[in-house]
Amino acid sequence: MTSGQNPTRESILGGPAVILVQPQLGENIGACARAMLNCGLTDLRLVKPRDGWPNPKASAAASGADLVIDNAKIFETTADAVADLEAVYATTVRTRDMIQRFVTPRVAAGEMRERYAAGQKVGVMFGPERTGLVNDDLTFAQTLVTVPLNPAFSSLNLAQAVLLIGYEWFQAGDRTPDRFLHTGQTRPATMAERVNFFERLEAALDRTGFFTSEEKRPSMVRTLRNAFERMEMTEQEVRTFHGVVAALVQGSRRKGENQD
Amino acid sequence: MTSGQNPTRESILGGPAVILVQPQLGENIGACARAMLNCGLTDLRLVKPRDGWPNPKASAAASGADLVIDNAKIFETTADAVADLEAVYATTVRTRDMIQRFVTPRVAAGEMRERYAAGQKVGVMFGPERTGLVNDDLTFAQTLVTVPLNPAFSSLNLAQAVLLIGYEWFQAGDRTPDRFLHTGQTRPATMAERVNFFERLEAALDRTGFFTSEEKRPSMVRTLRNAFERMEMTEQEVRTFHGVVAALVQGSRRKGENQD
Repeated sequence: MTSGQNPTRESILGGPAVILVQPQLGENIGACARAMLNCGLTDLRLVKPRDGWPNPKASAAASGADLVIDNAKIFETTADAVADLEAVYATTVRTRDMIQRFVTPRVAAGEMRERYAAGQKVGVMFGPERTGLVNDDLTFAQTLVTVPLNPAFSSLNLAQAVLLIGYEWFQAGDRTPDRFLHTGQTRPATMAERVNFFERLEAALDRTGFFTSEEKRPSMVRTLRNAFERMEMTEQEVRTFHGVVAALVQGSRRKGENQD
Repeated sequence: MTSGQNPTRESILGGPAVILVQPQLGENIGACARAMLNCGLTDLRLVKPRDGWPNPKASAAASGADLVIDNAKIFETTADAVADLEAVYATTVRTRDMIQRFVTPRVAAGEMRERYAAGQKVGVMFGPERTGLVNDDLTFAQTLVTVPLNPAFSSLNLAQAVLLIGYEWFQAGDRTPDRFLHTGQTRPATMAERVNFFERLEAALDRTGFFTSEEKRPSMVRTLRNAFERMEMTEQEVRTFHGVVAALVQGSRRKGENQD
């Protein structure tokens, strides 16, 4: 269940309509609803679902995506289901005889984001499990979407096809940084904190005779500092490593080694 | 079944290992195998599958991805399953207390492609269905992958998580054009063929008095040509439209209208 009372949450819901043409299994409709809500999509439209509607199997398979199931709309024809939309995309794994524009899911998602932002209503059609969309349905689509996959084994189940389109839709609007270091309660160490640790480590190593010669010392120091820098230490980790060095020095002193 | 005798087909198989740590349901393992083969991934590793191995339910749910199921390797510990890998990614939906590097699936896929191309062995870990990976397993991963999804409803089933990682892996190496016009047996019309049609249409319209004034004609011609150009006509369609114009002219002549 999604209450949508959080404004951030609310704003990511909506998006393109997902039109399932003559879906067969309730389980698949439910799994589609779950995949839709994973991706913030809530407008589910069913054209002649084989086993009628509502369908308890769909509700069970939706795993809590009740928001989508409860608001699903039922249509007698594909024409009715897409009537209010300005642009319709259709998924198909096969290249047809028809002359049609094909795009990848990523391009389709970008185009749909642009249209959606401009206030247009858009939708994506998916065909029945076994047969896919028939050519008469495809004439309602201005653009076909085909998912690049292993050509020797490209058949996706219905919910997985919905998930991939929904995933690209969500990514196209998502502002998550591509990569980041999660530092929990701490923060990245400052350069001064890191250098302070490096100097302490190097001083401790100087006392042990680790640097075999004054000549080799600079390159060995660079090797160590570069390795530690790749670690992207947090302030907490710098303190931990100070402790590690202290413990090692202390331990070796206790054992009577390297007393200097 | 995929025989892999086609060299093109062969070359897209392989890729990162998929490591399922203590998977519970055979159906889920099978659905993961199917999603893997969809994306050209064939190296499935199972750490202590709850219901033993082989598992008939996994084979059934694999929907023909026997290549993956038959070659699955079983391990007693996560450490054993990742021992030969240079880099391990782990999927997790939650931000943990641990300090770790996080990336999106897209960034992970790009990095894995680079490592794989350099001859490194890489893998992606997925945790048990209910609990996800425990922190001790996560220490084997240098990078965590988190899928940007609706934060209010982000739980994916195991096979869908595998599909999204595999999908990004495949896209990162795929050379399908982002968009193209499928023209079947015909080809895009040349500019000369299109202009020839435009001129014929405009001449036919000239005879009907469609262009209300010589002054407005150029802008009306531009409007028509621009609209037709958005169609990206094929050679076959140009011929069809020639026929359409001829039929309309002929029809109106037969009815005795606009005889000029």
